[in-house]
Formats: sequence, structure tokens, C-alpha cells
Amino acid sequence: MIWAEFPEIRRELERVKAVILEEVTRPGGTLSRGLRDLVTRDAKLLRPAFTIIAARIQTGGAAVSDRIIRIAAAIELLHVASLIHDDIVDESASRRGGASLHVEYGSRAAVLMGDYLFSRCFSLVADHAQPENATLLSAAVSHIISSEIAETNGGQETGFSVRRYMHRIVGKTAVLFALSFHFGASEAARDEGGDPRTVEILRRIGYNIGVGFQIIDDLLDLFGSSRRTGKPGATDLRQGVLTLPVILAANSAQRSRLIRVLQKIGGRAAQPRLLRFWQERAIERVRSEVAEAGGRAGAMAAAEIYTRRAEREIRRLPRGRDQVILRELTERLLSRAS
Amino acid sequence: MIWAEFPEIRRELERVKAVILEEVTRPGGTLSRGLRDLVTRDAKLLRPAFTIIAARIQTGGAAVSDRIIRIAAAIELLHVASLIHDDIVDESASRRGGASLHVEYGSRAAVLMGDYLFSRCFSLVADHAQPENATLLSAAVSHIISSEIAETNGGQETGFSVRRYMHRIVGKTAVLFALSFHFGASEAARDEGGDPRTVEILRRIGYNIGVGFQIIDDLLDLFGSSRRTGKPGATDLRQGVLTLPVILAANSAQRSRLIRVLQKIGGRAAQPRLLRFWQERAIERVRSEVAEAGGRAGAMAAAEIYTRRAEREIRRLPRGRDQVILRELTERLLSRAS
Repeated sequence: MIWAEFPEIRRELERVKAVILEEVTRPGGTLSRGLRDLVTRDAKLLRPAFTIIAARIQTGGAAVSDRIIRIAAAIELLHVASLIHDDIVDESASRRGGASLHVEYGSRAAVLMGDYLFSRCFSLVADHAQPENATLLSAAVSHIISSEIAETNGGQETGFSVRRYMHRIVGKTAVLFALSFHFGASEAARDEGGDPRTVEILRRIGYNIGVGFQIIDDLLDLFGSSRRTGKPGATDLRQGVLTLPVILAANSAQRSRLIRVLQKIGGRAAQPRLLRFWQERAIERVRSEVAEAGGRAGAMAAAEIYTRRAEREIRRLPRGRDQVILRELTERLLSRAS
Repeated sequence: MIWAEFPEIRRELERVKAVILEEVTRPGGTLSRGLRDLVTRDAKLLRPAFTIIAARIQTGGAAVSDRIIRIAAAIELLHVASLIHDDIVDESASRRGGASLHVEYGSRAAVLMGDYLFSRCFSLVADHAQPENATLLSAAVSHIISSEIAETNGGQETGFSVRRYMHRIVGKTAVLFALSFHFGASEAARDEGGDPRTVEILRRIGYNIGVGFQIIDDLLDLFGSSRRTGKPGATDLRQGVLTLPVILAANSAQRSRLIRVLQKIGGRAAQPRLLRFWQERAIERVRSEVAEAGGRAGAMAAAEIYTRRAEREIRRLPRGRDQVILRELTERLLSRAS
């Protein structure tokens, strides 16, 4: 577990887990059972950890206030809500090493469970955060869902646009990472005072980690062994979603063969008609064409750029134990693909 | 159309519609198409009308500010979001005289469409309302979804509790009605000043109209002709949801026959095993048993109590055109069952 070496963060995350458990237990019945099942599965709790680390950096390592613990829990509830609804949207069968909720409890219950967590997130933030942070949250959620909509429409996308890809992954991951840091830093500054420039630095760290993290996630989806990621390989490709390595390769000089194979795979709509065997062969072809055309190396270089940006910002933070934790965490999150 | 006689309200509702259309057009693609389709269907727009009427009562009939128009639109977006998700949860095939979105665009798209509207509601309120109203909104949404969860669990409910029924319909309808009035009254008071007691009276009017309205809705679901309501009759009963007339009858002296028939119908789980013919016969039996045991009359009396309460509060409002509009509107909404 990623937090074994950072006991001070793990301790605070236990408090976050207690709030989450309290929240999901309240409605009772089948839905509480389903949510408890999901939130007690092993999870990294990255986003609340970001909030906690940001708060500690702002206060020089002081214990995190109960208010900020609740805000950190709210962010995780938002993340879990979007996972539950994403799994319905993407028809994913598994989540966090178990069945996804819509598989175990049906789509109808899963819709309500996600809605409930969304509303609890907004409620906790409205109760415990500063009003301007509640405003930021709702704008962020609109942005996140718009990106998902763009990804859903992505199956019908024509052309290979790096700009559109970046826009999508900012919404999918970087917005919430940045918000997690921002919430911790700005709310701690309200409690204890603190440097507004540090809030801005931490927000940028979250943004850069988020973009780097998602590029690596997309690389692992295409090239990682399914044993390692716990997911069937190339899920994006199967759903007609184009990710950075594919887009970069399609924009290279050796693009023509790749595009022919991609047309064979098609988007979601085309899938049922494809025989399974041919699809697996086509996916193998895409992998080798993308690697050959430099799409894999190009995406790794892009992830590297964002990692370096995050590290540069981390060096600007006040020195201390939490700065070290954040540096090591970033290193670990962003070297997964190598 | 209900607003034909109240042109001053209809005019403001046109502004609300323009904001709604602007909001649903933004994401683009299939999802915008689906949402535009739904929001341009004929709808009463009751909730934004409540907000507008409350604001006008507070200001003595002044033109409603753009800020309040956006808040009124936000409430309608919330309502539409919950309709979209409800239709997935209840597997309803039609909505507002057309196909429901999950039927026309699939459950996956419908989940996202609902999420998008939820987030836009929170965002509009965060941007345009006072912070304490944003807090109220998120608490209200949690409450509304908890009630839905309770209704879903209701299929497995044992016993016939009027208290639990009332709790459910408050969450399902009265909370949002009360909030609609409260938002209009309190935000107008911020712009123009106004009596805080009037805010409280208007909130109570919303609550009482909401409870009365839902009791009547439930009566119409059981006894109304399907031609009139546009829905197949007795949908609650078919889904194992017990409503006031049934609960009152089951608590009466002549309860034993009714309970035997109810057991035959069962909840959702039992439905597929029932032959259609027997189910229709059993539903007919429930209707006559409920009427005979006084459940229908009892529920009508309960609706009447809430209608009277709303009317009493309306008489306490400042006199004027908007008070008259509200009185006539209430009369019309709550005499649907007679």
C-alpha cells in the first residue's frame, strides 16, 4: 500500500475513511450495503491525501482540522460517485478488485447510489468549506461531466487532435487533482493563515500531476499487461476512445497503416459486428504500429514534461517533511509506466 | 396551458426557458440534442414559477432580476435531472408526452445527461444565489435522493406506515416546492429588501402545496384514468410502492381482504412471475377494496387539509395581484382529483 511509508498521511486518511463510512451508512437498506461494500475495498484515496498534504504544507505539518477532513472526504465521495456512474456508462464489470455496483445491484440502484454521493459531496463542501470553494466545486463538476460527454462523443470523433485529447484529460483527471490540492491549501490558510502564493503553487502541482497521471494511465491501458492493471487491455481502443499514443502516431509520417487498422476497429457502434479474433489481431496491430510510429515514446515524453513541471513547483514549496512526502509521492505516481 | 391566464408569469417563464436552453445547448453532441428535445417538450415549469411568484410577492410585482431567473432555471434543471434518473430507476418508457431519454438514447447517455444537469444546477446556484441558499440546496438534494432510496427500498417494506409515507412524499415533492418559494423570496429580499416573515410564510406555502400535490398525484395514479394522466394506471402499486389511500385502507377495520390481494401483487421482485391477466384483476380488486375501506376518501381529506393550510398562509401574504395568482394557482393544482 502506497501510504505504508507515510504514517502521518495514513493516520489522517483513517479519519477520512471514518467520515466516508458514516456518510454511506446513513441512508440504510440495500444502497448503504452496496456503497459500504465499494468504499471499504482497497483504494489509494489519492485525492483526499492531496487535500491533507496541501493543508499540512500550509500549516507546517499541524494536525488537520476536522473541517478539512470532511472536505477531503467530500472529494473522495465525488470521485466514487463518478466511478459508479462511469461504470454504468462504460459497461465496466469490475471496480477496485470486485464487481462494479451496477453489475451487483443493477443499474437502477447504481444511478441512485452515485446521485446520493454527489449530493453528499456538495452538502459537505457547502457545510464546511468557504463559499468560494463551493462555487469552485460546482464549476469543476460541470467541467468534469462535460469532458465525459466529450469522451462519449469521442467514439464518433474524426481527426486526431492532441488539443482535444488534452482538454478531455484535464477534465477527466487534472481538474479534480488541482481542486483537491486547492481545497486543502486554501481552507488551511483560512484556519491558520498561510501564503496565498503557496495555494497557487499547490493548485498547479495538482494540475500537472493530474495530466501526467492520466497520460500514463492511458499508456498503461494500451500497452500495460492486463495482469498488472487488473483491467482487460486496450479498453479505450475498444470503446473508440483515442488516447495520446494513438493520436501522436496517427499524426506521424507513418500514419497510413495505423489509420487503416483503426478504421477496422471502429468505434463502439462497429464492435458487435467484429468477430472477436479479428478484433484482438487488430488491437495487436495498433499496438505495434503505434510503437513503431513513435506514439508510445511521444506519450511517455509528454508525461515526463508534466512530471518535471510538478517537480519544479514542488521545489518552490516551503521545505520540510511534507514537501518530501509530496516529492516521493509524485515520483511514484508518475514512474508507473517505466 | 396553465399560464395562459397569468401573462406576467408566462413572460418571466420565457426568460427561464431561454436560460435552460442555453445551458443544455452548451455541451454539444448527442447529449445536447437529447436534453434539448426533453426541455422543449410541453411542461408546466411549476417550480421556477413558484420562485418567480415568490420574488414578485416580495418586491410588490417588480420585474424579476436576471439573477433570480437563473436560480429559477437551476431549480428546473434539478427537477429535470431527477426525472431523467427516475425514469431509469423506474424503467418508465415515456416522459412529457414523448419517449423517456433512457429509452431514446440509452441508459448510459441518460445517466450523463442527468449528472450534467445536476452539476449545472449547483453551478448556477453557487454563482447567483447567496451562500446560505447554496448550502440549503445541497442539503435538500441529499434529502430528495434519500427519499428516493427509501421509495426503492419501499418495495420490501413491511407494515403500513402513514408516517413513513409522509416522510417519503415530503422528500419527493414538498422539499423542492418549499425551496423554490424560499429561493425566490429570500433572493428578492436581498436585492430589494423585504420582510423575513414573508420568506417563512412562502416557504410554508410551498411545503403545504407540495404535500397536497403529491397526495393527489398518488390518488390519480391509483384511481385516475390513464387517458387523463398520460401514464399507465397504478404504476406505484405495480412497483410495490404503497401510497396513502392504500395505507389508510390497510389500517382500517376492513383490512384483511385488501392485504390478501396486496400480497398477491407483491413488489417488483414478484412481478415477472405474475400472469398479466391476474395482475390486472388484482389491481382492480385493490382499487375497489381501497375505495370501500375509505382509503380514497381518507387520502382526499388529507390533501384537503394541506390545501387549506396553504390557503391560510396565502391569506397572510401582502395583498395584490401576485397573491391572487398564487391563490388561483393553488386552487387549480389541488383540485385536480375532484
